[in-house]
Amino acid sequence: MRMSRLLVRTLREAPADAEVASHQLLVRAGYIRRLASGIYTFLPLGHRVLERLERVVRQELDRAGCQQMLMPALHPLELWEQSGRAALFGSDALPAMVVEGRGGSFVLGPTHEEVVTVTVGAEVESYRQLPLTVYQIQVKFRDEARPRFGLLRTRELLMCDAYSFDVDTETMQASYRAVFDAYLAIFRRLELEVRPVEAESGAIGGEVNHEFMVPSAVGEDYFVACPSCDYAANVEAAERGPVADTADRGPGDGAAPEPVEHHTPGQRGIEEVLPVFAAEGLGAADLLKSMVAVDDGGRLVLVLVPGDREVLLPSGWRLFDEVDFASRPELVRGYVGPMGAQDRGLRVVADHAVRRPGAWVTGANKVDHHVSGIVLGRDFAVDEFGSFARVVAGDPCPRCAADLDVVRSVEAAHTFQLGFTYSSVMAGGTVIAPDGSEVPMAMGCYGMGVSRLLSVVAEAHHDAAGLCWPAEVAPFDVHLLALGTDRAPEVGKAADRLADELESVGLRLLYDDRDTSPGVKFADADLLGVPVRLVVGQKGLARGIVEWRDRRTGEERELDLERVVGELRPD
Amino acid sequence: MRMSRLLVRTLREAPADAEVASHQLLVRAGYIRRLASGIYTFLPLGHRVLERLERVVRQELDRAGCQQMLMPALHPLELWEQSGRAALFGSDALPAMVVEGRGGSFVLGPTHEEVVTVTVGAEVESYRQLPLTVYQIQVKFRDEARPRFGLLRTRELLMCDAYSFDVDTETMQASYRAVFDAYLAIFRRLELEVRPVEAESGAIGGEVNHEFMVPSAVGEDYFVACPSCDYAANVEAAERGPVADTADRGPGDGAAPEPVEHHTPGQRGIEEVLPVFAAEGLGAADLLKSMVAVDDGGRLVLVLVPGDREVLLPSGWRLFDEVDFASRPELVRGYVGPMGAQDRGLRVVADHAVRRPGAWVTGANKVDHHVSGIVLGRDFAVDEFGSFARVVAGDPCPRCAADLDVVRSVEAAHTFQLGFTYSSVMAGGTVIAPDGSEVPMAMGCYGMGVSRLLSVVAEAHHDAAGLCWPAEVAPFDVHLLALGTDRAPEVGKAADRLADELESVGLRLLYDDRDTSPGVKFADADLLGVPVRLVVGQKGLARGIVEWRDRRTGEERELDLERVVGELRPD
Repeated sequence: MRMSRLLVRTLREAPADAEVASHQLLVRAGYIRRLASGIYTFLPLGHRVLERLERVVRQELDRAGCQQMLMPALHPLELWEQSGRAALFGSDALPAMVVEGRGGSFVLGPTHEEVVTVTVGAEVESYRQLPLTVYQIQVKFRDEARPRFGLLRTRELLMCDAYSFDVDTETMQASYRAVFDAYLAIFRRLELEVRPVEAESGAIGGEVNHEFMVPSAVGEDYFVACPSCDYAANVEAAERGPVADTADRGPGDGAAPEPVEHHTPGQRGIEEVLPVFAAEGLGAADLLKSMVAVDDGGRLVLVLVPGDREVLLPSGWRLFDEVDFASRPELVRGYVGPMGAQDRGLRVVADHAVRRPGAWVTGANKVDHHVSGIVLGRDFAVDEFGSFARVVAGDPCPRCAADLDVVRSVEAAHTFQLGFTYSSVMAGGTVIAPDGSEVPMAMGCYGMGVSRLLSVVAEAHHDAAGLCWPAEVAPFDVHLLALGTDRAPEVGKAADRLADELESVGLRLLYDDRDTSPGVKFADADLLGVPVRLVVGQKGLARGIVEWRDRRTGEERELDLERVVGELRPD
Repeated sequence: MRMSRLLVRTLREAPADAEVASHQLLVRAGYIRRLASGIYTFLPLGHRVLERLERVVRQELDRAGCQQMLMPALHPLELWEQSGRAALFGSDALPAMVVEGRGGSFVLGPTHEEVVTVTVGAEVESYRQLPLTVYQIQVKFRDEARPRFGLLRTRELLMCDAYSFDVDTETMQASYRAVFDAYLAIFRRLELEVRPVEAESGAIGGEVNHEFMVPSAVGEDYFVACPSCDYAANVEAAERGPVADTADRGPGDGAAPEPVEHHTPGQRGIEEVLPVFAAEGLGAADLLKSMVAVDDGGRLVLVLVPGDREVLLPSGWRLFDEVDFASRPELVRGYVGPMGAQDRGLRVVADHAVRRPGAWVTGANKVDHHVSGIVLGRDFAVDEFGSFARVVAGDPCPRCAADLDVVRSVEAAHTFQLGFTYSSVMAGGTVIAPDGSEVPMAMGCYGMGVSRLLSVVAEAHHDAAGLCWPAEVAPFDVHLLALGTDRAPEVGKAADRLADELESVGLRLLYDDRDTSPGVKFADADLLGVPVRLVVGQKGLARGIVEWRDRRTGEERELDLERVVGELRPD
């Protein structure tokens, strides 16, 4: 491909909305262009990388025995009503768009669990047809509230979504592992250091799931990782172990003061109450957050965490809301405390940190009042200790008690052991098991944003001068520059011939034949990020050599003009 | 690929809504499944054909120097307002869907002229960057009123759309020709007998355009073709030559009767008036349709065609509607006649056939009255004769006067010389010309429904037993059947080994290793339509042979088991 014919225009300045390097560079190098907020066009260079990404994904999934298919983007709304997920539309968890057509209401598919379950379900009748894993690479739509970071969070994206179907949970786990391993193989080829972490399942559902996280200084996600064992989890799912210096404290501990009530009118939150007790030398760590929640069984629970920690509820639990409080006036919103909670029908759970010695300040269960000098065991009882606070760096690992790290990162993929979430509610989700009974299929689902990966790879592989594509996904193998062809026509002729030869052996070549200065050509080559740069110039040509340079390492060599094709020829 | 693992289920019965063979067979053979009206899933077999179709399209467009990119499916509505096409939404010409999102109103792109013009326009500043042709293979949405014929008319489709940009009309015609020729090359490889015909441009716009028609007994389109010259046009655009037996007739011709008024209360149309004159031996050919129209310059025109012909207005003209008639009460709707039309400010044009000798029956320009005995030249005058009637078989060719054929067909692609339709109204549509002036780019656009082609090819290549794919787009190269493996385990072993060998030389193999009867395997092989069938059976194996069969011709041969891989190995 001659650069004079390629639709590419490099820019000196990044667009104003480009906050991160990958976004800035993909725009500056002419890979992508914004059509609207969160909606991008892939110019020829960007499309070439997408195509290479798709190729890697397809090869690894095919190798793992998955079968490619293609499902529609328009889904009948009824399917989403059948699964119950239509109720989540408009939430950040499932920002789906619905369009009215002559054939009814259609969801612009943000994901395909419903469609694939009824589609595969209609074809599969017996366990003999299982296990089966299908996938597609297809456009998805998400009505994001705040699209950001170029291709990292968009309203329209290219996604590879896979779905596995098994007769039972055990074989489902094997199918899950096969895709999981294929994902790891994909990320190795993309030269991404990915860490699979345990995560919350959010709007997708299911029990076990993993996010594939790439550590990144610009990430919007955080995961918790143990430096000494293999524990890793999304902060939304991470647990921490018991705090080392805690011990049960009985009532009547000598150092404990007596409870004292304080008038705190209108001061409901920790931030508002803090000034009242600051004079006594107390900080957020001395306050006790008492949050009323509803557990996954619908029962009332009081959750206690120190005032300097953020509460993190187990999956399926939710906090009491305004309506709940209105129906239970004996629970004084903003002034709830754990004293006598069990007598009021509340189970009390507390984060490990609540076992620390000493007194607490907490709500007095009375409007406009807090109480200080409250002691665990004497003034309130805890039914269960556990990990109820969001993990921060330095918290103990739940497996080995080492100090945990919190790592900023971007999500590159997400896999879910769905189990029976969809197969038990969607039409046709069952098969005949070996014993002749009809059972719902055990499903897994697996999502990887292919267009997102373009940004993830660019974010992981760039330097100050531009992009540095890994060979597997680079838009071209070789970038050939012809320098000073206006003064030295023999350079143009030699470069033309070399270009033909390089292409004839199957190399994907970008040939900068433009009538511009060496400085512009060098800068553009660095910006575009093709792995290998070759330069044909007047001086080198006189000596019969071509300059070879590795974009990423900067390593340079002189190659014999007559032997360069042989040296670069792909295997 | 082992058939026991492939997601395919063949059906004995076609679905009730499948009217045409391609639709019936694609469903019965497990290539596609309907999710909703006009919305299909491509199962693994269907996806494999789609992929092969895309490959052919890409190779030929790349060879023609086009560059692939990828534009979004979500288009800001403003762009369509800028071009003026938003006004056509909801019409059959442009059945676009609009969705409301957090970022505003978005059109689900049915085509991409607006988006590509602003996108390419922003990158291209000078004629030096032209000519340029870009294309994409991407999902499109059309809110069809009546989806039909499987993939032939759908609400969601995979389309290859290309767009050319040139500095002037002359080079645009060269770019147009290059894509036109690439299309012909694509259709040759798909073994489709395609005829490019002149057509109406409809909602796309522009002057010259061609439809690529495949003759088909189930087509929804008709084109007119001359058997003796190369004239071919869509019936919507076809013209006919002057009728042979016509001659100018002056007033006062001896045979002409005097005008006689007839009371025809409420009988406005030809069908309603006919019975009145049937008693006098007059038929539809004796009646003169007088249709009031507005030409492309906004002027009133009276269009005359014989009562047995359908009027066909030139491009850009439209018929008078109810509102128009209400504003011009002197034009009596349903009773308009050509007498004195020029005095009332109407230009009169007539189809060639109106020059035939003899009298006419026409409206009396008076409510509830017709008049007979009206003669051209004596009672009314025609300002211009031309081709104003829809062509029927046997009409004279406008170029060579031979009898025209009318051919039923399906449209496989459509190409347009757009000219300045979009570049003159969309932002950034101009470039600097060699003389330094700023000129709108001369554009072409080119559309080919890739998913539609799956049906077009299936419709052209099938027989009573099933599909017969051309090698270029077949889902597999070879379909290997192992017969009677339950009784003869050596057959299974030999077939397993042969399968490995065939795959190792790069053949795309479907291996029927299922535990089913020979009859089922033969029937499924015929239905699926892989070009070459190989059979390993007990008797043949004993003689060291494999049975080879060409799916399309039915030709059969015995191949030496040891040499079959060498014979089938791809070049």
